[in-house]
Amino acid sequence: MTITIEKTSNPKQKPDQNTLGFGEIFTDHMFIMDYTEGMGWHDARIIPYAPLSIDPATMVLHYGQAVFEGLKAYKTKDGRVLLFRPEQNMKRINVSNERLCIPPLDVDTAVEAIKAVVKVDQDWIPVAEGTSLYIRPFIIATDPHLGVRPSYTYQFIVILSPVGAYYPEGINPVKIFIESNYVRAVLGGLGFTKTPGNYAASLKAQVDAHHKGYTQVLWLDGVDKKYVEEVGTMNVFFVIDNEVITPSLEGSILAGITRDSTIALLKSWGVKTTERRITIQEIYEAHARGGLNEAFGTGTAAVISPIGELNWDGNQIFINDGKIGDLSQRIYDSITGVQNGSLEDKFGWTLEVK
Amino acid sequence: MTITIEKTSNPKQKPDQNTLGFGEIFTDHMFIMDYTEGMGWHDARIIPYAPLSIDPATMVLHYGQAVFEGLKAYKTKDGRVLLFRPEQNMKRINVSNERLCIPPLDVDTAVEAIKAVVKVDQDWIPVAEGTSLYIRPFIIATDPHLGVRPSYTYQFIVILSPVGAYYPEGINPVKIFIESNYVRAVLGGLGFTKTPGNYAASLKAQVDAHHKGYTQVLWLDGVDKKYVEEVGTMNVFFVIDNEVITPSLEGSILAGITRDSTIALLKSWGVKTTERRITIQEIYEAHARGGLNEAFGTGTAAVISPIGELNWDGNQIFINDGKIGDLSQRIYDSITGVQNGSLEDKFGWTLEVK
Repeated sequence: MTITIEKTSNPKQKPDQNTLGFGEIFTDHMFIMDYTEGMGWHDARIIPYAPLSIDPATMVLHYGQAVFEGLKAYKTKDGRVLLFRPEQNMKRINVSNERLCIPPLDVDTAVEAIKAVVKVDQDWIPVAEGTSLYIRPFIIATDPHLGVRPSYTYQFIVILSPVGAYYPEGINPVKIFIESNYVRAVLGGLGFTKTPGNYAASLKAQVDAHHKGYTQVLWLDGVDKKYVEEVGTMNVFFVIDNEVITPSLEGSILAGITRDSTIALLKSWGVKTTERRITIQEIYEAHARGGLNEAFGTGTAAVISPIGELNWDGNQIFINDGKIGDLSQRIYDSITGVQNGSLEDKFGWTLEVK
Repeated sequence: MTITIEKTSNPKQKPDQNTLGFGEIFTDHMFIMDYTEGMGWHDARIIPYAPLSIDPATMVLHYGQAVFEGLKAYKTKDGRVLLFRPEQNMKRINVSNERLCIPPLDVDTAVEAIKAVVKVDQDWIPVAEGTSLYIRPFIIATDPHLGVRPSYTYQFIVILSPVGAYYPEGINPVKIFIESNYVRAVLGGLGFTKTPGNYAASLKAQVDAHHKGYTQVLWLDGVDKKYVEEVGTMNVFFVIDNEVITPSLEGSILAGITRDSTIALLKSWGVKTTERRITIQEIYEAHARGGLNEAFGTGTAAVISPIGELNWDGNQIFINDGKIGDLSQRIYDSITGVQNGSLEDKFGWTLEVK
C-alpha cells in the first residue's frame, strides 16, 4: 500500500501537557482511506486534520453503520515511539466489521496506516506522567441513501489526540453504580462490537449515575439482570479469596485488549485467574464475608481503574477501604511500564514506530 | 421562531416520477437549526441542500447519539400539499430524545420547520401513483469530543426526498424470515426509539434474509425468543379468526404512527383489534388450523405491506395464498386516500401546508 502524505502548512500550537483532558484536542494530520464496492479499499492518504464534507443523507448519520477502535502511542525516555498491541485492535475492528456488514480491513495495512500517521505527528505525543497519544481509528458508512441496507462506500479514518487521564480520579478508585433498569446489550445484539450504538444506549444510565455521584455504571446482563457484564468503557475484574474472576466472553461484552493483557500478566505471575459468568449477588456475598479483596476495571482509556465503591439498588459496599489494591497497582505499573518502555516487554506487546 | 430562507441559485433537475426509488434523490433545500447548551435551539434556517462540514471527532460518528423520524408529504389532485400527522412524529422524536439524552424540540416549532421546508420545495412533490415526498427530520450530536458523554451541541436537520415504493414488491405481499439468532433490541434498551443503533443492529440479519430470498426479518423478543416484536421498518399485524392482533408496546418496539392509525381505523370499522404479546408459536398454530386470515406490516415508508410468506426455522407458511387480503387492502386504501386527499379525513390526520 502506498500512502500519500500532504503535510499541513499551518501547524497548530501544541497543548500544555499538564492540563490535558481526554479526546478534546487533535493533532495536525489524519489518515483517510476510501472503500468503494468493486474497487475495495483505496486512496490511502495522510492529510491535514480538517472537517469532513458529509452529505446530510450519509448513512452513518441515520443508521449508525460504523465501528471504531482506541489505542495509544507512548514516547519512551530515550525518544522511541511505541504502540501497544495495535494488531489486536485491527483484528477486533474486523470482528466488529463482520457484525456490522462493513468490509474488512487488511490488518497489516491498517497497522501500517496507524504507524504512518503517528510518525507524522510524533511531536504531539506527550510525555508527562499519565499522558499519551490516543489513537482513534474508525470506519463510517458514506452512501447518501435513506433505504435501510449496508452502504456500498465507506471511509476508514485515523485521528490522534494527546490525552491525560480518562477519569478525573486518575488511578484513584472510582465509584460504580450497578444498573438494574437500562440494558446496554444482549446476546444476539452488538455488545461484543465497538460500534456507536452501544455507547448511545449507555448515555442515559451514565447521566443518571453521575447525578447520584457515581463515575460509571456496571451493566448486568439483559436477560436475567443478574450476571455482571462490563462498565461500558472497561471490563471488570474481582479479586475474591485471592482468585481473580472476570466475566467470560459470552457475546454481549467487549473482548478488551487490556483485559486480555491483564489475564496474561496474572497467569504469568501464578495468580489464579478465572473467566466465567459471575452474578452481582455472588460479589456482594463475597464482600459480606470479607472475601472481596479488590475490584478494578480495565480499558485502553484508563488502563486500570480501581473500584472503591459499588451501589446495587441502594446497597453500598466499599472495597479495600476505598484505596487502590496491591494487585491493581501491580497490574497498572506493569502494563503502563511496558507501554512507556520503562519495563521489559516480555510478551512482545509493543511495536516501535520507526 | 423566525426561519431565515436562502434559496438556491442553482436548482437541480427533478427526477422522472415513474422510476423513483427510496431515499436516493434529495431536493434543493434543507432546514437546519442549532442547539448550544445554555442558548437552546437557535438559528433556524432553510438553505440550499449541501454537504455538512463535520469534524472527524464529531460525537455522532463515534457514539451514535442521534435520533430521526420519517413522514411524507402528498400533493392532492387540486394542488394542496398535505402532511400526515406530523405532530405525532415530533412528539415521538422527543420520546427518542429523552432516552438518548438529547434536548427536546418544541413540537409546534418543529412542525413549522417541516411545513416551511416542504413549502419551499413543494414543486418536488411527485404525484404519480404510489409516490410522495419523504421527509427525514433528524438530530445529530455535534461536539468534537471522544470522551463518552452526551454532547453539548446538536443540529436538527430536515431533508426531503421524492420517493416511490419502499419495497420493490410495492403493495404486493412480501416474504418475511423469522429471526431466531440475532436480536434487535431488548427491554431496557433503545428498541422503542428511532435511533441509528437499532438499524445498525438489524443489518446483518437483513442481509442474511436477503440471501435466502426474503425481503425482511421479523424480530422476536431478546429474552425468550418467542414473542413477536416488529419487522424493523414496520410494525406487524395478524388477522386470526377475524380478530386483528398486534404486539403491544412493551418498550422494545417502535410505537408506529401508521400502526396507531391502523388501530384507529379498525376500531372505527367495528373490527375487533387487540394489542397484546403474541408468540410466533401461536401464529403458526393459527395457520395450521386455518385461522390465520391475513398478516401485514405498517410503516411510513411502505404504509401497508401484506405478508405472503413466513419462514420460522425452515418452516414456511403461506398466508392468504400469497395475495393481499381484503382487510389489508381496505386499510391501505383508507390511509393512502386520506394522505393524498382523495378521501375524507374523518380523524383530522392531515395538516395542509399553505
